[in-house]
Amino acid sequence: MHDVAAAAGVSIATVSNVLNHPEKVLEGTRTTVHEAIRELGFVRNDAARSLASGRNLTIGFVATDLANTFFVDIARGAQDAALEEDRHVLIANSDVKASLQETHLALFDEARVAGIVLAPLGGPPPGVESLRAHGRPIVVVNHASVRTDVCSVLIDNEEVGFIAAEHLIALGRRRLAFCSVAGDSDQAIRERRAGVRRAVAAHPGVVLEDIDTIDLETPGGIQAGHEIASRPAAERPDGVVAVADAVGSAITRVLVGEAHLRVPEDVAVIGCDHNLSGREGGIPLSSVSQRGYDIGVEAVRLLAQEIADQGGEHVHRTVVLQPSVIADESTIGRDRAIGG
Amino acid sequence: MHDVAAAAGVSIATVSNVLNHPEKVLEGTRTTVHEAIRELGFVRNDAARSLASGRNLTIGFVATDLANTFFVDIARGAQDAALEEDRHVLIANSDVKASLQETHLALFDEARVAGIVLAPLGGPPPGVESLRAHGRPIVVVNHASVRTDVCSVLIDNEEVGFIAAEHLIALGRRRLAFCSVAGDSDQAIRERRAGVRRAVAAHPGVVLEDIDTIDLETPGGIQAGHEIASRPAAERPDGVVAVADAVGSAITRVLVGEAHLRVPEDVAVIGCDHNLSGREGGIPLSSVSQRGYDIGVEAVRLLAQEIADQGGEHVHRTVVLQPSVIADESTIGRDRAIGG
Repeated sequence: MHDVAAAAGVSIATVSNVLNHPEKVLEGTRTTVHEAIRELGFVRNDAARSLASGRNLTIGFVATDLANTFFVDIARGAQDAALEEDRHVLIANSDVKASLQETHLALFDEARVAGIVLAPLGGPPPGVESLRAHGRPIVVVNHASVRTDVCSVLIDNEEVGFIAAEHLIALGRRRLAFCSVAGDSDQAIRERRAGVRRAVAAHPGVVLEDIDTIDLETPGGIQAGHEIASRPAAERPDGVVAVADAVGSAITRVLVGEAHLRVPEDVAVIGCDHNLSGREGGIPLSSVSQRGYDIGVEAVRLLAQEIADQGGEHVHRTVVLQPSVIADESTIGRDRAIGG
Repeated sequence: MHDVAAAAGVSIATVSNVLNHPEKVLEGTRTTVHEAIRELGFVRNDAARSLASGRNLTIGFVATDLANTFFVDIARGAQDAALEEDRHVLIANSDVKASLQETHLALFDEARVAGIVLAPLGGPPPGVESLRAHGRPIVVVNHASVRTDVCSVLIDNEEVGFIAAEHLIALGRRRLAFCSVAGDSDQAIRERRAGVRRAVAAHPGVVLEDIDTIDLETPGGIQAGHEIASRPAAERPDGVVAVADAVGSAITRVLVGEAHLRVPEDVAVIGCDHNLSGREGGIPLSSVSQRGYDIGVEAVRLLAQEIADQGGEHVHRTVVLQPSVIADESTIGRDRAIGG
């Protein structure tokens, strides 16, 4: 950068601005600096220089599944928070495959990133010790770890279920159903189910049933939709909490498209993900915000603190964010949803 | 990896399978290998080893804007194609900022990736010469370069406009409007406009007007929606091609939510992006598939060829993919959209 500044006859700060905040620099100066950069074959900026000098300013984000917009939101929040302190984020997509998750952690380790934000698959996050032994702190997001020696950021999933059910009850629904795979092995599902039960228990006269689905995707929703549609009206739920938006969206498609019921008039449906999978080919689905962007921001802040604390004391923290309902046509009806 | 195999008493192939295809390995063997890995502090897999030895199998993808699902689709296609030859993809999000685009190209250059897939911002892709001088081929996607010395993959944007207009005409619409920012400085817009005009010209009796918007986002759509709604019925278009889904979605919200017109009965609306921005708070929007996944696959294939050709002859190629209409409620109505 010194060479570029000298060749262009400007300060180092100006070169830095041209690279990072070009809007602050006059166009003529920008052109001069870019010409100097080209002539010198200069490729490094501050971040790349730091990498070469061993002080890497890059943060690696290992995402569970970028096809789920929740993880894109996390990546965007992480990047914005990282940029505030001139760090950069590279993203690797595990695509819901454990082998890719391990490969990407190893890649970032080998690339000597300053730290890693990991949205792990179902199991406990792998490789924390080994990464930490190499001086690479790791912050876990969207996974309530049983271990207390890792910083983590997550949404309050019990509250997700609670506010989804409260939303339906506030709209006058009295016969609720929770649609999800059976069992309580998955933490998020277990907590969402508990939240739904807490809301129902707080309202005498409201009843709840579980409708088990074969999966958390479209097939499970189609199955649940048929189950609901096959019943006489008096035995149908009038409000459905679907543990995943993909399930909720498929339920609305079956109820409206095949069974010719009305959503939300006959059955109101809310998902729990707000990940836009409820936006494909059906009635726009109410859901619960997972606050992915904020999770990304908090994760990078925790990571920065852990990086700063390296070699000294560090207190691991867990940040729990509160969700909020995003109401759309599947619970409040078209007029209110579009009219705003 | 040799050390791990020796310590675990298994073959190198088994260690590789544990890391990359764990489902192929018995659980007991997996545990033994993972214990050996932990004991040895082993962090490298094939990809990381290659990186350390100077033969990097990582491909960098510099995305214009991950908030647009089109670029996530490209990343996913690129990753799947890369995995077929044991390469890995790391993603950097330019977030529509030229300074970030330059930073990320420099980061990938410094990290000595095998090659780069770049979805550039508006201008010509920067840094191609410098990256190539460093032995890093670059393939450009979603940008019709004027230069012939770069491989590129793009969608046929003239066809995008053509099939969007043809879709409306086939549904019986005769007074079309093309909603976009004025001018023809942006290549994609210029081509989509030309395609719409070609379709209209092929159908005597169909008329077309341009409705200029202030931008390609929600404000532009709100403005166009008000313009359309303010007219007497006989002067309103009955079919709208919005150059961007965000514009089309905002138009439907104004027409239905404020002006109490019917979509599609009074005005059918189609976007051109299919990027799910047409899925937020309105009538599900018909649009045109941009084939992002296929673009990613083709880009990595071209890149692999250019990497293989390094030091020898290489013929640069441009792959042009054909779009297709994805019909939804905003043109074919709710019953057909949900009933499938």
